[in-house]
Amino acid sequence: MIDLSGLYPPIVTAFDDNENIAYDKLQLNLQHWVSQPLDGVVMPGSNSEAAFMTEDEHISIMKVCADSLKGTNKRLIAGTGMETTAGTIKMTQIAGRLGAAAALILPPHFFKASMKHDVLISHYYAVADESPIPILVYNVPAFTGIDITLETMIALANHPMIIGAKDSSANVVKMAHVLAAVPDFQVFAGTGSALLPFLSIGGCGGVMALANFAAKPLRQLYEAFNNGNMKEATRIQLSLAHINAAVTSQYGVSGLKYAMDRSGFYGGPTRRPLLALGESDRRKIDQLLINLDL
Amino acid sequence: MIDLSGLYPPIVTAFDDNENIAYDKLQLNLQHWVSQPLDGVVMPGSNSEAAFMTEDEHISIMKVCADSLKGTNKRLIAGTGMETTAGTIKMTQIAGRLGAAAALILPPHFFKASMKHDVLISHYYAVADESPIPILVYNVPAFTGIDITLETMIALANHPMIIGAKDSSANVVKMAHVLAAVPDFQVFAGTGSALLPFLSIGGCGGVMALANFAAKPLRQLYEAFNNGNMKEATRIQLSLAHINAAVTSQYGVSGLKYAMDRSGFYGGPTRRPLLALGESDRRKIDQLLINLDL
Amino acid sequence: MIDLSGLYPPIVTAFDDNENIAYDKLQLNLQHWVSQPLDGVVMPGSNSEAAFMTEDEHISIMKVCADSLKGTNKRLIAGTGMETTAGTIKMTQIAGRLGAAAALILPPHFFKASMKHDVLISHYYAVADESPIPILVYNVPAFTGIDITLETMIALANHPMIIGAKDSSANVVKMAHVLAAVPDFQVFAGTGSALLPFLSIGGCGGVMALANFAAKPLRQLYEAFNNGNMKEATRIQLSLAHINAAVTSQYGVSGLKYAMDRSGFYGGPTRRPLLALGESDRRKIDQLLINLDL
Amino acid sequence: MIDLSGLYPPIVTAFDDNENIAYDKLQLNLQHWVSQPLDGVVMPGSNSEAAFMTEDEHISIMKVCADSLKGTNKRLIAGTGMETTAGTIKMTQIAGRLGAAAALILPPHFFKASMKHDVLISHYYAVADESPIPILVYNVPAFTGIDITLETMIALANHPMIIGAKDSSANVVKMAHVLAAVPDFQVFAGTGSALLPFLSIGGCGGVMALANFAAKPLRQLYEAFNNGNMKEATRIQLSLAHINAAVTSQYGVSGLKYAMDRSGFYGGPTRRPLLALGESDRRKIDQLLINLDL
Repeated sequence: MIDLSGLYPPIVTAFDDNENIAYDKLQLNLQHWVSQPLDGVVMPGSNSEAAFMTEDEHISIMKVCADSLKGTNKRLIAGTGMETTAGTIKMTQIAGRLGAAAALILPPHFFKASMKHDVLISHYYAVADESPIPILVYNVPAFTGIDITLETMIALANHPMIIGAKDSSANVVKMAHVLAAVPDFQVFAGTGSALLPFLSIGGCGGVMALANFAAKPLRQLYEAFNNGNMKEATRIQLSLAHINAAVTSQYGVSGLKYAMDRSGFYGGPTRRPLLALGESDRRKIDQLLINLDL
Repeated sequence: MIDLSGLYPPIVTAFDDNENIAYDKLQLNLQHWVSQPLDGVVMPGSNSEAAFMTEDEHISIMKVCADSLKGTNKRLIAGTGMETTAGTIKMTQIAGRLGAAAALILPPHFFKASMKHDVLISHYYAVADESPIPILVYNVPAFTGIDITLETMIALANHPMIIGAKDSSANVVKMAHVLAAVPDFQVFAGTGSALLPFLSIGGCGGVMALANFAAKPLRQLYEAFNNGNMKEATRIQLSLAHINAAVTSQYGVSGLKYAMDRSGFYGGPTRRPLLALGESDRRKIDQLLINLDL
Repeated sequence: MIDLSGLYPPIVTAFDDNENIAYDKLQLNLQHWVSQPLDGVVMPGSNSEAAFMTEDEHISIMKVCADSLKGTNKRLIAGTGMETTAGTIKMTQIAGRLGAAAALILPPHFFKASMKHDVLISHYYAVADESPIPILVYNVPAFTGIDITLETMIALANHPMIIGAKDSSANVVKMAHVLAAVPDFQVFAGTGSALLPFLSIGGCGGVMALANFAAKPLRQLYEAFNNGNMKEATRIQLSLAHINAAVTSQYGVSGLKYAMDRSGFYGGPTRRPLLALGESDRRKIDQLLINLDL
Repeated sequence: MIDLSGLYPPIVTAFDDNENIAYDKLQLNLQHWVSQPLDGVVMPGSNSEAAFMTEDEHISIMKVCADSLKGTNKRLIAGTGMETTAGTIKMTQIAGRLGAAAALILPPHFFKASMKHDVLISHYYAVADESPIPILVYNVPAFTGIDITLETMIALANHPMIIGAKDSSANVVKMAHVLAAVPDFQVFAGTGSALLPFLSIGGCGGVMALANFAAKPLRQLYEAFNNGNMKEATRIQLSLAHINAAVTSQYGVSGLKYAMDRSGFYGGPTRRPLLALGESDRRKIDQLLINLDL
């Protein structure tokens, strides 16, 4: 089984002022990410505004990423979860052909009440049966309105092609239980502030918005943990709390893109309905960035 | 301002056994709906599995409906809410060109925490400014995870092109407040069991899954109310409670399609991940249908 | 079976400036309520700040109410739900001895996750078996965090001593289903803005904070409905929407008590942690009261 | 400032078969807890069924605990949160007089919607101003329906008498943020499965149902962490996941009391409405206990 351990940004998509994908900017960003202490990139994830893309755009940005990473030692983990089972199978197979190392798959979520245990198992197993690459389950109730239960997560882990999960709900209690039941499951923190807690229960890394522009301190934290230097790891973890909140729960993708613009990457505008940050919110992020060693 | 008062089914999409759209079956259903005591159809709505469609399919089924209703006195209310503002504008304009009488627009909902008052106002106003047809706001927290607040709903109603709303959360307290503040807002019940309560607070009709196959009793209820025969209206409303639950909260689209199959329409399969009902659930719906006069 | 149909305020408890019960003020209020077009009072309910009382106070205010209503044609419906089964049985028996016509019983709610169907049935049946008076189930998820399900409500209705319910969640869809299954269940709206919608599905009245000081328009609405004058009933219902929100969801008990102070009743202070309204909020309520004919 | 770091059980209350407090059994348990590798006990907490107690019982069990711990090096952290501000002040002062080292105070929670930032600050500050002992904020949304926000928690931490918090929601992201903002805040895990994650972000211990009967492995985990032996700490943490779930989210107090009965303590019955476990659930807990070294 492939070992995906490590640190990944769910990378943002570069748009121009007309809300079209700015492929040149995306490629420049990718060159930059390749030079960072990262193990690869996740694309598209929630922060890439995948929900705002057509199927063609979805495929096209996966291809750009796969091409940019070719010949490097970085992995592409492709986001391939669509609302239908057939669509998810198709997108996962395309990702595999493009060279993605794994697929990160969020559950169908429009018909929330219908997404019961049996339906989710049936969906993920159908995809896994047809997938050429290993699958990570993506649990992100803040976006999907669905919180994959302990029971469902363990049942999913029974499929040989489902090798891990990203948990953006930062539920250490549930994920410790999953890891107790399935020791080799590859569990990723889904937000920067949960990295050390997830490592402490046997997690193997993180897929974190913060890693879009703050790979360095996250890597230092990760290495401090691996070297048994918990005091240092804790210190770094807390030093990232404010900026992590700013680019996730507080200001969302708009905040993340602004922070990238201020950190040597191209952030650029979001697609609407997401709006640019106002002046005072930008000043708050400026202030938080001053204290970071990026 | 156009008066949309009346009863509408958010019609289902006919699929064949390979999960492709069965246009012939859809057209047969449309002929049947045209003959029913309905004021038109809503397409695509949640029950049409719009979340499972490509943009091309979305446009194509709107066209089929518009063509089928041409020359009849029935209206097409088109579902045109997409995740992006630009996409929603485009789809609403297409619906207008195809001849839709109005657009029913659900809010963008992937980035739930970001869909604050200002963002929703900005989104809906941008769409309304560019829309050739009047707009109904579609509040359906069970699917979107977003419950449009009283304050936001009233602010939306201030735009001259936003003339009403469908509230699937059946929140009579909130919608009475909206109607007290904006007396000519056209408020539709979003589920069959809320029709009479919504009429009692000044609502003007319903957009109800149940109307896909039970237009007759819903029309009888509506006329009893309009004729001041509340006892009869109440009796019919309660007689529909069980079957309404079965084709909405209990069994969802799968239940609705099965009930249609048993009532002279083509229901057919859903797209996956939605699954067909099991035998015992089908028997329960059979039982409920026996007691209905359709 | 006793028919409790009608309109009731869940009356507030008068406190003095030291947060002690002001029995004289409570008695004056009771004389006033007796003269209003009401069918009785509910005491203690949520708005009485029952959650802030000792057991002794709880008994003592029930006694004051029972004594004040003696010799009138008004009923006391006593709130007797405690966290324990034994405590609820005891309080219900005391209420019966004091002369209450019925008991309104909210579910135990601290251990929310444990309050599953079987536990709630076991609790309510144990109480009903020992109760000398009929029981109304009190569903108020905003305060208890527990939403009694359709299935549980129907099972509760099977006990001969459980004759009805107050639903503060204004769930017309669920309560229509309950009334379809149990036609003689006595269902009360739990907030003023839901009165007409509940009457429209066969409800028999309301237990409404608003009735503390606005019995007259609520009675006019009720009679318009009973006389088949739906247009007038709808008109009154909408005219109460703003003030109803102010004394419930918007400003809670503090708002209700202020509105009472301005309407010929003694409202007085709440117990802390609830705080008095600020100046601007008081002005908003003043404005709303101007438009009412009390 | 007193340093409360360490491990505490929120101890259960012993009841006899008539649901009366079994003081003799409680005292025997206390003798047993004193001999365990614990830093004290919390009483009453949620698991003590405090919600089911009269005020007199509440005081009386605090006194029994204080007396039993006298002359030992174990601390009593008293649960003193009541629904009213005045009641909480009174109970906290009594706890102080009895010798409690600190008070663990859950927020008033009946009027959930009214418990906004300002109201909570006003309440806690009023209590802290009158308290003779330091205060820990108790955040337990599963029972209170209130999730104290980051902003409120940081504002509470500004009061010199509010020195820490127990977070039963296991929200590592929020508590890391609190610790980044208030480095000397004493943060306790509120469930056994969150102990190591909380230690990893700078927490200082745990108040955990599991510690009622499994102090030994929790202490081993705590010491492994303090000695920099993270691999061992992680191993123990995962080994406790199943039993921790059984005595909290899965079976609640009934499960906890049964596990105690099987581990050398007196668990005994709960008060109703909580019910005893059925046979098959007891067998599941038996199975989990076999694998523990207690």
